[in-house]
Amino acid sequence: MQLLIDSSTKDLFPWINAFRKELGEEKVITWDGITDPDDVTTAVVWNHRKELFERLRNVKLVASMGAGVDHILSDPLIPGAAFISRVISPHLSEPMSNYCIGAVLYYKKQFDKYLEDKNRKNWDQEFEPEREIQVGIMGLGELGRDLAIKLRSLGFEVFGLSQSRKKVPGVKSYLSTESDEFLKQINLLICMLPATAETNGILSKSLFDRMNRGSFLVNVARGHHQVNEDIVEALNSGILAGAFLDVFPEEPLPESSPLWTHPKVFITPHIAVVTKIEAAVPQIAENHMRVIRGELPIGLVDRSKGY
Amino acid sequence: MQLLIDSSTKDLFPWINAFRKELGEEKVITWDGITDPDDVTTAVVWNHRKELFERLRNVKLVASMGAGVDHILSDPLIPGAAFISRVISPHLSEPMSNYCIGAVLYYKKQFDKYLEDKNRKNWDQEFEPEREIQVGIMGLGELGRDLAIKLRSLGFEVFGLSQSRKKVPGVKSYLSTESDEFLKQINLLICMLPATAETNGILSKSLFDRMNRGSFLVNVARGHHQVNEDIVEALNSGILAGAFLDVFPEEPLPESSPLWTHPKVFITPHIAVVTKIEAAVPQIAENHMRVIRGELPIGLVDRSKGY
Repeated sequence: MQLLIDSSTKDLFPWINAFRKELGEEKVITWDGITDPDDVTTAVVWNHRKELFERLRNVKLVASMGAGVDHILSDPLIPGAAFISRVISPHLSEPMSNYCIGAVLYYKKQFDKYLEDKNRKNWDQEFEPEREIQVGIMGLGELGRDLAIKLRSLGFEVFGLSQSRKKVPGVKSYLSTESDEFLKQINLLICMLPATAETNGILSKSLFDRMNRGSFLVNVARGHHQVNEDIVEALNSGILAGAFLDVFPEEPLPESSPLWTHPKVFITPHIAVVTKIEAAVPQIAENHMRVIRGELPIGLVDRSKGY
Repeated sequence: MQLLIDSSTKDLFPWINAFRKELGEEKVITWDGITDPDDVTTAVVWNHRKELFERLRNVKLVASMGAGVDHILSDPLIPGAAFISRVISPHLSEPMSNYCIGAVLYYKKQFDKYLEDKNRKNWDQEFEPEREIQVGIMGLGELGRDLAIKLRSLGFEVFGLSQSRKKVPGVKSYLSTESDEFLKQINLLICMLPATAETNGILSKSLFDRMNRGSFLVNVARGHHQVNEDIVEALNSGILAGAFLDVFPEEPLPESSPLWTHPKVFITPHIAVVTKIEAAVPQIAENHMRVIRGELPIGLVDRSKGY
């Protein structure tokens, strides 16, 4: 009935402390503390070591430390009978929406231009100080919906694209099959799609070529959605006027990436949303108790959908 | 019954065209077209020439081309019997709030830090990716109120300071006499005050010294609110962590100003809100007709208050 925690990229110390407060000292272990692998009920992971599930064959729950689960689903060693859960939290939508609104307003109010002007001491009071911006959100789930509503309240026109038609007040919702029509309406695309086989590499030349010239791209979802070389090409050809990127196929972004030096790229190091330990730990601890009692966990992931 | 238009800083051509469509070709003149100064009922101005009101002694209405009227009130030649009006427009609050929210989120999500990191190809995924921000708005008028409500809906704590206590849901309102208490609550100050004798130079050392160390300053009101040298000193001493400035005592900001090269200063060239001709002209034309009919204009300014 133990809970094991493993990550190659996160500092585990505060997580272990928080879980021990919830579940008791002896119930919470790490890789080095495994004595009986079959006693591990729950594995709490974020980019876990490759060999982890070679040992944990009887695990009942694999819990992501955040909202994403692609790092779990991509591991073929996860026992087929185990539940997979992700952190569901109202606290995720607020930082996510704030990041995206910050990026939208950065382009709307031409902060990019004024930063360049400052370097040249150039006082350029243009006649039209705002860009016309129509926002398109790919992925109108819980996060996309919160963002759409907030952007509407700031006066933006908002369009959505998703697998099923969504009802969000004032937002025209398109199906994935109608992406041509969707892309015609917008000049700022925000990617909030889950990581699935279908969305892998979706932010690539074949999509950019269908966008309005001079559009902006914001990716806050997953790095594997985007093809970096195609973004650079679209920026250089003028199809894209700017790219505001929080995620990358390889993280940290390699020093050799041309994105680092491209003047039209804004880079943040996967920080749009960072799951707060205080929000995640009680929920995962509750799920640990639920699977012990034979109940379904909160935030259960459908493996066939990928989210 | 003529309307005269004059400005040393705006391109008058589109304004003249728009007024002629409203009032007829022959009713709209400029300085060079004055034949009978006493026939000029309305003077539409923005930084008008000094000698203008030496000639226009019978003007009934002096209409600002924007929301500000300090450029009018500072001219002692304005006839005492003339009405002064400013443009009142629901369209002003949207661009103003969007500018301020863009600045708040820029600091909240540490875009300033990530821009610097990009220059050094530095992937720094800090544990806490957001700054704690408590916003204080000086001036809870129509514009301040719209901003306060929107910031609340994005999850920010908001405090207000104004001459009279204002009721804005979720916003604690302080009186000008309680500024010490107000400043203790906040670490991001947005100045939206009107330009009056009392607010002249208010953004200076004596105010900064009472702020929390490491605070941010946003000025979208009037340049004469701020003492540039005191801002630089407060940035260098660490009292201010950043300044996001749209207005300056002298505009264009002189090339010699240390603000241009200060790494913690964001400069925009007085573009937070630019009054749209389409919004302003019908309102001013209506006011022109109102004063001809002996009625009060919309957006009448109280000279004793200064706004």
